[in-house]
Amino acid sequence: MAEETLAALRSLMASHSPKLDALVVPSEDYHQSEYVSARDRRRAFVSGFTGSAGLALVTANEALLWTDGRYFLQAEQELSKQWKLMRMGEDPAVDIWMADNLPTEAAIGVDPWCVSVDTSQRWERAFAKKQQKLIQTTTNLVDQVWTSRPPAEINPVIVHPLEFAGRSVEDKLKDLREKLVQEKARAIILTTLDEVAWLYNIRGSDVPYNPVAHAYAIVTLAAAFFYVDKRKISSEVSSYMEKNGIEVRDYGVVSSDTALLASDQLASTNSAKETGKAGTTVSDNSVEERRNDLVWIDPGTCCFALYSKLNQDKLFLQSSPLALAKAIKNPVELEGLKNAHIRDGAAVVQYLVWLDNQMQEIYGAAGYFVDGEVNKDQPRTAKLTEVSVSDKLEGFRASKEHFRGLSFPTISSVGPNGAIIHYCPEAETCAELDPNSMYLFDSGAQYLDGTTDITRTVHFGKPTSHEKACYTAVLKGHIGLGNARFPNGTTGHILDVLARLPLWKYGLDYRHGTGHGIGSYLNVHEGPHQISFRPAARNVALQPSMTVTDEPGYYEDGNFGIRLENVLIVKEGGTKFNFGDRGYLSFEHITWAPYQKKLMDVSLLVPEEIEWLNNYHSKCREILAPYLNASEMEWLKKATEPISA
Amino acid sequence: MAEETLAALRSLMASHSPKLDALVVPSEDYHQSEYVSARDRRRAFVSGFTGSAGLALVTANEALLWTDGRYFLQAEQELSKQWKLMRMGEDPAVDIWMADNLPTEAAIGVDPWCVSVDTSQRWERAFAKKQQKLIQTTTNLVDQVWTSRPPAEINPVIVHPLEFAGRSVEDKLKDLREKLVQEKARAIILTTLDEVAWLYNIRGSDVPYNPVAHAYAIVTLAAAFFYVDKRKISSEVSSYMEKNGIEVRDYGVVSSDTALLASDQLASTNSAKETGKAGTTVSDNSVEERRNDLVWIDPGTCCFALYSKLNQDKLFLQSSPLALAKAIKNPVELEGLKNAHIRDGAAVVQYLVWLDNQMQEIYGAAGYFVDGEVNKDQPRTAKLTEVSVSDKLEGFRASKEHFRGLSFPTISSVGPNGAIIHYCPEAETCAELDPNSMYLFDSGAQYLDGTTDITRTVHFGKPTSHEKACYTAVLKGHIGLGNARFPNGTTGHILDVLARLPLWKYGLDYRHGTGHGIGSYLNVHEGPHQISFRPAARNVALQPSMTVTDEPGYYEDGNFGIRLENVLIVKEGGTKFNFGDRGYLSFEHITWAPYQKKLMDVSLLVPEEIEWLNNYHSKCREILAPYLNASEMEWLKKATEPISA
Repeated sequence: MAEETLAALRSLMASHSPKLDALVVPSEDYHQSEYVSARDRRRAFVSGFTGSAGLALVTANEALLWTDGRYFLQAEQELSKQWKLMRMGEDPAVDIWMADNLPTEAAIGVDPWCVSVDTSQRWERAFAKKQQKLIQTTTNLVDQVWTSRPPAEINPVIVHPLEFAGRSVEDKLKDLREKLVQEKARAIILTTLDEVAWLYNIRGSDVPYNPVAHAYAIVTLAAAFFYVDKRKISSEVSSYMEKNGIEVRDYGVVSSDTALLASDQLASTNSAKETGKAGTTVSDNSVEERRNDLVWIDPGTCCFALYSKLNQDKLFLQSSPLALAKAIKNPVELEGLKNAHIRDGAAVVQYLVWLDNQMQEIYGAAGYFVDGEVNKDQPRTAKLTEVSVSDKLEGFRASKEHFRGLSFPTISSVGPNGAIIHYCPEAETCAELDPNSMYLFDSGAQYLDGTTDITRTVHFGKPTSHEKACYTAVLKGHIGLGNARFPNGTTGHILDVLARLPLWKYGLDYRHGTGHGIGSYLNVHEGPHQISFRPAARNVALQPSMTVTDEPGYYEDGNFGIRLENVLIVKEGGTKFNFGDRGYLSFEHITWAPYQKKLMDVSLLVPEEIEWLNNYHSKCREILAPYLNASEMEWLKKATEPISA
Repeated sequence: MAEETLAALRSLMASHSPKLDALVVPSEDYHQSEYVSARDRRRAFVSGFTGSAGLALVTANEALLWTDGRYFLQAEQELSKQWKLMRMGEDPAVDIWMADNLPTEAAIGVDPWCVSVDTSQRWERAFAKKQQKLIQTTTNLVDQVWTSRPPAEINPVIVHPLEFAGRSVEDKLKDLREKLVQEKARAIILTTLDEVAWLYNIRGSDVPYNPVAHAYAIVTLAAAFFYVDKRKISSEVSSYMEKNGIEVRDYGVVSSDTALLASDQLASTNSAKETGKAGTTVSDNSVEERRNDLVWIDPGTCCFALYSKLNQDKLFLQSSPLALAKAIKNPVELEGLKNAHIRDGAAVVQYLVWLDNQMQEIYGAAGYFVDGEVNKDQPRTAKLTEVSVSDKLEGFRASKEHFRGLSFPTISSVGPNGAIIHYCPEAETCAELDPNSMYLFDSGAQYLDGTTDITRTVHFGKPTSHEKACYTAVLKGHIGLGNARFPNGTTGHILDVLARLPLWKYGLDYRHGTGHGIGSYLNVHEGPHQISFRPAARNVALQPSMTVTDEPGYYEDGNFGIRLENVLIVKEGGTKFNFGDRGYLSFEHITWAPYQKKLMDVSLLVPEEIEWLNNYHSKCREILAPYLNASEMEWLKKATEPISA
């Protein structure tokens, strides 16, 4: 299979004009998405590697797959012998490899819709020294050989009501146009699925786990366009669009419309002025448009294909203003997120209660509360697997109001599988639960009022003192970051060390970032801010009303994984003083589920940490009470009893 | 005076060819030094502002002085009404200001010996948009109007013996030439005074506080040159140089020799091969030189004048390799630094004992140990001032072995003066000691075996609870940073937050970096690493055997200043685990002097901090004992009694 695909691709490369010495197959779809639909999993189809991040390169006689540290183990298992694994951070980067290993004047093909402006330009710089060329293929060669490619999704676009969105499209367009005018731009092209969904207050279901529709948007000072397969638009949505002055056009038209936009000939069919909506911020559009003659695209996300159609002298290349606008949640979104996290926390507690019972009943485990050996005499009556329990967890979530699905594939991992950071169990191959092993679950859901993401690590038997010490170090980092107060202007990069310090003390660490933004019934991973040891390309400071996760971990290959994750909201710090008049910020936890006391080495906790834990646990009890029955509540009371030093 | 100087300068600017629209007068000397000799204090002469950092700009009708946050207060006091203070970080940067405010095609003059390649190129980029030009003046216009300019220093160059330097010149040249070959360079020009001193194992006394001589060095694969006023070279030093294959040339010759180097015609008068020293690393120099044809200069420190004489196509522009080589101390230097810090700590304790007695005797203070009110009935028999007590401190240091002078002007500051971060008391204007105020002293010395730098803050009366809370927060930051363990590859920028976090908790902070490298009987401020909230241009990780200070503070304008500073050595971390095989590091304190327990709010300290303090205090007692008399030792025992929570 892999061999046939490669042969077919190489034949297309040879007959391409010009003949291609190499073909790059990125993971991303036409919108540079992190998660892509089944028909867009071209890199997985070609290489067999199914992880979320990677890049395949096919040459006349080689096939290479680049991926990052989260996926080394998985890639080794999934790649066939035709493929060579290139380890990011250890092996040369793909552009360096191509420049060094492909011949002088080589032609390197890529579908220009699948690669961003930044990436393609970085490659072109690397190619320059050997006069190599990046060739934009006019069709996607992978699609040509992918006979069983899934059909296009025709899932309905739905309106995200104001009671959850919190701000009207009119308001959002007004703000966006003000930013355009500030930057002397006459238009912006939006290619990122969640930005389009956020701006127009719509949602879709074209991509698993992300409630978005495949769509583009172009917003000019006078008009707003929505490029989408029109079969997805009901008459209700159609009139919603019209009412908001948004013109719906076919998905494929974005290409020719971008060319029209370049020559300033993109006009709305229905005059925006007549609708009285889309042009509200600008008194005299024609004058404004003359003064503002740039087209704004975000080079980090806009595809090379659309960029190539624009006038290079009249571009404003900068991060999309919607990334920050979307990241700073409005009061309605904040309220929704908090409510969604309460229901989600209740589901997690219900799951823990159920799992605790099951582990005792089926496996004779000492249970969540008792630090003890397994009762080996107990007859085994059933079997729990990583997948069967995660299905149960999904069931608890599905029973909650506003549930719309999971926000990412649940990571449900026993023992050594916990050390595979992005482990995704499959029903056929997954492990059985084990009362003698750590169990890590990282999961979340999409609710109409918010997206959730929580990780807890538990043990139903007798954890070793090493496991306890590691859990406590992770917990200390989790609390240390969450309790930080910091001046305005501080980035997540500055705070990242707070989550690692207790681990570093022992010579331990984890190979992933510490936190990401989270959407409001949108993508579970959201920028532009982050908490990471790597300085971000866009060094965006943490700002009030942003969401961010706090998720340090520790992973011991072959043994266990530990991660603890809550979602935080950035808020005013309420500090006693305000040195330098900068304003100080802090975090508010909005995730509610207990940490397992049995896994803590309390002697390693300082009074401030114990106080925080007791306070958090007491709030858990209070906040989740309305959603739990008597026996669940009894369990939670026990799980949240105060710790003393 | 200021007016006459400005008039004379403006007249020279007008008659210059081309006519200058503006003249830049930087703080730096011909070597981009932080501290400069009296005759190089051109910016201070022109502007009247005497702080260590700043830049003056004179135009036809304006005079502006840029300086940073440490000096806003001082500059306001010192600048005459002709001058306008430009606050760095608040007002536009000098290059932006010039580009925006000077006319199109303006000619902006600067002495190219006083400005680095990086800085001049940054200015030229800013000037491009209005076709402004940076003009290299052929003489220094300030020197022309500075009739009372101090004469050149003719201070002897001395050899820094191997017993203190730890590595021979031969070894250092061998390593340097290996680096040249690695980078395909045939020569390096060294312009930084401490790098020249370090490489050739010599010291001087041309610059106050810095034991360096005004000198340049050029090292080729075959020869080594030392450019210095030959009157500073004794016959003994002359034969030392010859023995090491170093050719001594006149200071001024560096300019023409650089031109010769550019055309590959710089040859040693005494063939290096004959001496058998300077060419030791390279078997066949002529072959090596053909293969390696670049000239290495450090664009951050090399002056624009020398750069302009070189062939731009054959330059290797990168940080000097000596910055890192010098920063990583050898075992002899480490031993010397530790010993110097012990003697220095003894001097500081003797000073504290003396000051404690004086404050009680003269001012009726409750004293170092007693948290109590001043005895107002006690007759005042004498007077202590910031300067008189710092002279006493210098005396204690001067009595110690290997003492060679101070390493920077002592900061001795009472009450509100403590909030002026770089306060430098003058005998005529300084404040009197005050038993009701905080007293901060930041001081250090040059010893033959090492350079020291220590800050303590004390109170001899009854500190307020606010003062105690602030002191404790600074102390917690100081301990938190010093106790960190961290993986190889971690920069000081990553760790900086650890020193600020306890202050941020209250909404407090400080407007300076947290740590700098320190020399081995060299400059008190040394790179290339640092601990700072600002990411460094050269992001050099902390590495074993580096020195770095740990000096958080808090400054309350009009009230008090607090700073605590120890020198640390980076060492192997000795962690239990070694995740990722990166190796983990930690710090070793080498500064020995007690922290005042009276100023601590012990309830704010966690057990780990108390344990660290008790352990540090117990080591202080043990280590300083051989240097103290009985009554001093009695005082120290009391000062270092264990704290209990």
